[in-house]
Amino acid sequence: MAGNTEEHFVTDKNVIRTRKRMLSCPAAMIAPRNQWYIAALSQEVTRGMLSRQILDDHIVFFRTEDGSPVGLADRCPHRGVPLSMGTIKDDAIRCAYHGFEFGKTGVCQRVPSQSRIMPQLAVQSYPLLEIGPYIWIWMGDPARADESLLPDQFELGITRPDWKITPLFVMEMGCNYQLLHENLLDVSHISFLHAGMLDTGSMAAASFKASYAGGRVRISRDLNEIPNDVMAKTFNLTAGKPVRRTLITEAIPPQLSVITNIFTDPENPNAPPHTMISPQGVTPSGNNRCLNFLINCTSYPDEQPEDALPHLWKLFEQDKVVLEAVQKRFDEEGWDLPEVSVMADAAALNFRLKMVELVEAEREKAATAKPLGST
Amino acid sequence: MAGNTEEHFVTDKNVIRTRKRMLSCPAAMIAPRNQWYIAALSQEVTRGMLSRQILDDHIVFFRTEDGSPVGLADRCPHRGVPLSMGTIKDDAIRCAYHGFEFGKTGVCQRVPSQSRIMPQLAVQSYPLLEIGPYIWIWMGDPARADESLLPDQFELGITRPDWKITPLFVMEMGCNYQLLHENLLDVSHISFLHAGMLDTGSMAAASFKASYAGGRVRISRDLNEIPNDVMAKTFNLTAGKPVRRTLITEAIPPQLSVITNIFTDPENPNAPPHTMISPQGVTPSGNNRCLNFLINCTSYPDEQPEDALPHLWKLFEQDKVVLEAVQKRFDEEGWDLPEVSVMADAAALNFRLKMVELVEAEREKAATAKPLGST
Amino acid sequence: MAGNTEEHFVTDKNVIRTRKRMLSCPAAMIAPRNQWYIAALSQEVTRGMLSRQILDDHIVFFRTEDGSPVGLADRCPHRGVPLSMGTIKDDAIRCAYHGFEFGKTGVCQRVPSQSRIMPQLAVQSYPLLEIGPYIWIWMGDPARADESLLPDQFELGITRPDWKITPLFVMEMGCNYQLLHENLLDVSHISFLHAGMLDTGSMAAASFKASYAGGRVRISRDLNEIPNDVMAKTFNLTAGKPVRRTLITEAIPPQLSVITNIFTDPENPNAPPHTMISPQGVTPSGNNRCLNFLINCTSYPDEQPEDALPHLWKLFEQDKVVLEAVQKRFDEEGWDLPEVSVMADAAALNFRLKMVELVEAEREKAATAKPLGST
Repeated sequence: MAGNTEEHFVTDKNVIRTRKRMLSCPAAMIAPRNQWYIAALSQEVTRGMLSRQILDDHIVFFRTEDGSPVGLADRCPHRGVPLSMGTIKDDAIRCAYHGFEFGKTGVCQRVPSQSRIMPQLAVQSYPLLEIGPYIWIWMGDPARADESLLPDQFELGITRPDWKITPLFVMEMGCNYQLLHENLLDVSHISFLHAGMLDTGSMAAASFKASYAGGRVRISRDLNEIPNDVMAKTFNLTAGKPVRRTLITEAIPPQLSVITNIFTDPENPNAPPHTMISPQGVTPSGNNRCLNFLINCTSYPDEQPEDALPHLWKLFEQDKVVLEAVQKRFDEEGWDLPEVSVMADAAALNFRLKMVELVEAEREKAATAKPLGST
Repeated sequence: MAGNTEEHFVTDKNVIRTRKRMLSCPAAMIAPRNQWYIAALSQEVTRGMLSRQILDDHIVFFRTEDGSPVGLADRCPHRGVPLSMGTIKDDAIRCAYHGFEFGKTGVCQRVPSQSRIMPQLAVQSYPLLEIGPYIWIWMGDPARADESLLPDQFELGITRPDWKITPLFVMEMGCNYQLLHENLLDVSHISFLHAGMLDTGSMAAASFKASYAGGRVRISRDLNEIPNDVMAKTFNLTAGKPVRRTLITEAIPPQLSVITNIFTDPENPNAPPHTMISPQGVTPSGNNRCLNFLINCTSYPDEQPEDALPHLWKLFEQDKVVLEAVQKRFDEEGWDLPEVSVMADAAALNFRLKMVELVEAEREKAATAKPLGST
Repeated sequence: MAGNTEEHFVTDKNVIRTRKRMLSCPAAMIAPRNQWYIAALSQEVTRGMLSRQILDDHIVFFRTEDGSPVGLADRCPHRGVPLSMGTIKDDAIRCAYHGFEFGKTGVCQRVPSQSRIMPQLAVQSYPLLEIGPYIWIWMGDPARADESLLPDQFELGITRPDWKITPLFVMEMGCNYQLLHENLLDVSHISFLHAGMLDTGSMAAASFKASYAGGRVRISRDLNEIPNDVMAKTFNLTAGKPVRRTLITEAIPPQLSVITNIFTDPENPNAPPHTMISPQGVTPSGNNRCLNFLINCTSYPDEQPEDALPHLWKLFEQDKVVLEAVQKRFDEEGWDLPEVSVMADAAALNFRLKMVELVEAEREKAATAKPLGST
C-alpha cells in the first residue's frame, strides 16, 4: 500500500461504479454461479424439509433414507406449488397439491392420474457435497460441477485430525453479500462496533500486513494482549494471563471469509499454539439478503463455555443491524450512493474489485456462449 | 380427449402464452366486464356499509330503507375520501369529510356549503340483482346490463321449491381468480391436498366423462362409496352405509363453479336422490386476489351438523394456502413461469383457453369502439 | 369569487393537471427548497439524537454542549451507516461502525485508523434557527440561507410579550403535505369531520371573507356562539356564556398554516380580546408523508385544562385518518385522479396554484443554473 493508494481511494468513483455494475442486476447474477457455496450446516438438513433461497433460486433440501443430502428446485413443474409444502416419501418428495413424486435426481417418478411420465416433468437437482459441518452447493451448470474448485478443507480447519469442530449458527442478513464480505475483512471496526467484545482495545492501533495472492486478500496482525473475561471466554484463554496473538483475516472469493486466531504463551513460546479457525460462509440469497454460516475449528479439545454462543450471536447481530441500515439506504437511493474510503479500506476495496472481475468474467462468457445452467 | 391431446399439453407453451396475455394487465381487464359477478352474500349487505374491491374497482354496498341493495363507487368525487368512511342517512351516504350526500343512483343530493349541485358531482352506481343468497353485480357499462346473461338460478339449486339454501362463507384468496377456477375444476387434487376429507380414497382412480358445451366444462364421475365419519358429516349421510355417488364439477365462464353431489341408495335406487349443489362464486378482486362465495343447496331439509362449517372452511383453507404459494412465485417471476400439464388437466386447460377468448373478445371490441363503462 | 369562479372550478382539469405536475416527482422536489421549514419542536432536540426525514433528506438533530441545535445529513460518508446510530461525543457524533467523528459543521474531525482526514469526509450541515418553541431548517443551498424569508414571529404569536406559548405535538401524517395544507385552509369540513368538537354547529352556515395577498390565502368568519363544554375547554371559555368569535385561517406558503380565534364578550366589547393563535408547521417528509407541528399561543395566561391535549390530538387524528385514505387512492391510481371542486374550495385551490408556481419557479431556476444545494 504505497502512498498513492491513499489518493486512489479518496474519492473511489471507480470503485462505486464497479460496485453498481456488479449489483444492479437480478440476484441470480451478482455472484459467479459456477462455484461452490455453503448451502446449509450439515445438521440443518434432515428427513424433514428445509427451503432456502440461494442466488434467487428457491431450493428444497432433505436427506434420502441412506442419509445423502439432496437439493431440488423448490417448485413443482406441474402447477408451481413449492415442493417444500409436500411430504417426504422414501427418497422422494410428494407434492402437496396433486401428489406427483420427485426423486433425488429431480425426475418425476409418479403421476397419480396417469402412467405416462413426460421427461419435462423434472426439477433441477443441484450438485451437493457434504464435508464435516457444511453442505456445499454448486449453483452453476450441473454438468460443470468441479470439485477442484472447492476451497481447501484442511486450510479451513475442517479436516485436521484431533481438532474440535463446533457448528455455531446461520444468520440471515438483510444486506448484499458483498457488504458482509467487506465487513468481515475490515478489522478496523472491531474497536468501535464491537467495543470490548473481541479485543482489549489494542486492535485499532496495531500495524498489519496485507497480502494479495490468487485473488485472496489476507490481513495479518501481531499483538500482545492480556485477555479480559469476555475475550478469555470467547477463545478459551485464562483471563489476566498475557498472550501473544496473531489475528489473520482472509477473504476467499467468492464464498468464504476465514478468521484465524493463534495464541502463544510468551513464557513458553515453543509450546503448540492455541489456534481457532473460524470459517464463515458468505452465501448470496437475494440481491439484498445473504446468509452467514459460522463454525469454529479449534486445535484444543476443550469445550467453549456455554455462554460463548449467545455472546457470538450478539456480536454478529451488531454487524447485522449496521449492515441492514446501510443496505436500506442503498435500496432507497440506488447502488451509486457515494462512499469515501480510507487507507484501512484498501483490503476490502481490492477484494471488491476482484469480485467484480469474477462476476463480470462469467457474465461475459455466458453472453458469448449458451446460457448458464440456472433454472 | 383424443391421444393427441396428451401430446398437445406436454409442454403447453401456447397455454402459458395465452395465460400471460390474459393476466399481464391491470386487474380491471383480466375478466370480461360486461357480465354479472357475485358481489356479496345477501346477508353481508345491511344498513351499515361494506367496502369491497371487484375487478380493481372500490365499491361500497349498503341497503336503502326499503331494503334494496345499492353499490356505489367508493370514492367521493369531491376530495377522494372513501364513501364507506361516511354514514348512512336515509337512502344516501354522507361523506365523512365535507358531508356531501349521494343517493342510490350515485347522484349528489346535497352540498352543505352551497345550493347548486353540478352534475359532475356523481359516482358510478353499479347495477345489482339480489336473488336468494347472492347479490350479483354488473361490472360493465350500466346501460348494457343484461339480465339474460345471469346464470340460470334453478340450475344452481337456488330457486328450487322445498330445497334448503345454506349460505356458508366468503373466503378472500391471495391469487388470481383463474387459479381458483382451475383448482375447482380439477378433481385430481382431492385425494392429496384434501386427503381423507372429501372422499374415501376412490376419487383419483375413478374414470370420468368430460363434456364441453356453450363454453362450459363439465366433469362427471360415478363411484360406489362407504362414507366415513367425515364424509358422512359433510353430506348428511350415514357413516358405513354404502352409497352410489355421482360427482359433477362444472365451470361456467366467467364467474361460477358448481359442484354437484348426487347420492342414491343402492338398495333403493328409485327413491328420490339425496342431492347437494354447491355453487361457488369466483369473483376477481385484483390481479392476484379473488373472492370465493360458497353456499350449499340441498334437496333434503335436514340441517348439516354444526361442525360441518368449520370442516368446510378448513378444506378451502387448504386450497387457499397452496394457491397463494403458487401466486407468490408468479408475483416474483412473472406470468410466463412454465407449467407442464398432464391428461387430468385437459378440462382446466380448455376452460382457461375459453376464458382467454372471452376476455380478448371484449378487449378487442373495446379497442374498436368506445371505452368500457368502467370508472 | 365572482360567478365565473364557480364554473372555473366545476371540473378544474387545470388544477388537477398542475397538481400532477407538482407532485409526480421525488419528494425532494415537491416543495421549494430555498425556504425555512419547521424541523422540530425545540423540546425534541436534546443531547441525544433525533432522526427525521425532511423533503426526502435523512437528517440527524442533536445539541452541542452549549445547547445549540445541529442538523447533519444522517449518513456517514465513509460506509453509509446512519450517524443517528452512533453516539454523541462532546460536540460531535461518533459513527457506530468505525468511530469516525463529525462536528457541528459536518466536517470529519477524527478517523481512528489514520491521521490524514480528506476534505471529502464531510456531511452536509443544515442551517437551523431556534426561536421559541420551534427549530427551523433551511433545506436549500446553505450559502443562500436567508433569515429575511423566515415567517414573522410576532404574527405567529411567538414573540409577543406576556403571551403564553404551549407546544402541543408533532403528528406524522401519511399524506402529501399539500393535502394537509388544503385541509387546514378548508373550514367547511369542521361541521362534519369534527362534528361537535370545534364549533356549536354554526360554522358551515357562516359567511366568510377571503383575501389573497403576497401569496397568502386568508379566510375570516365572524360568528356568535354559546360554547358547549368541549368548545369551552379547548378555548378556555365559560360554557353557556355567549361570545363573539372571529375565526381566521391563513395559509402562508410554503410551510405554515395559522388558525386564529379571537373571542370578545358581547356585554363588554372593549375589553382586551381573548385570543388564541395556533400556528401549524406543514413540513414535507416524503412524497406521501408530512409532519404537522402544532403549538398554541394565547393572549391569556391561564393553563388549558389537562384534558384539552388528548382532545386536540383526537381532532387531528380525524384529519389524519381521512387524509391517509385519500392518499392511499392517489398512491394506487396516480395523482391525476379527478376531483370536482365547489365554491368553498376556492381558497384551497388558489393556494394550490400558488404553491405550484413557487415550486415550478424554483425548478426552472435550478434547471438554468447550478443544481440546488440539496444533498
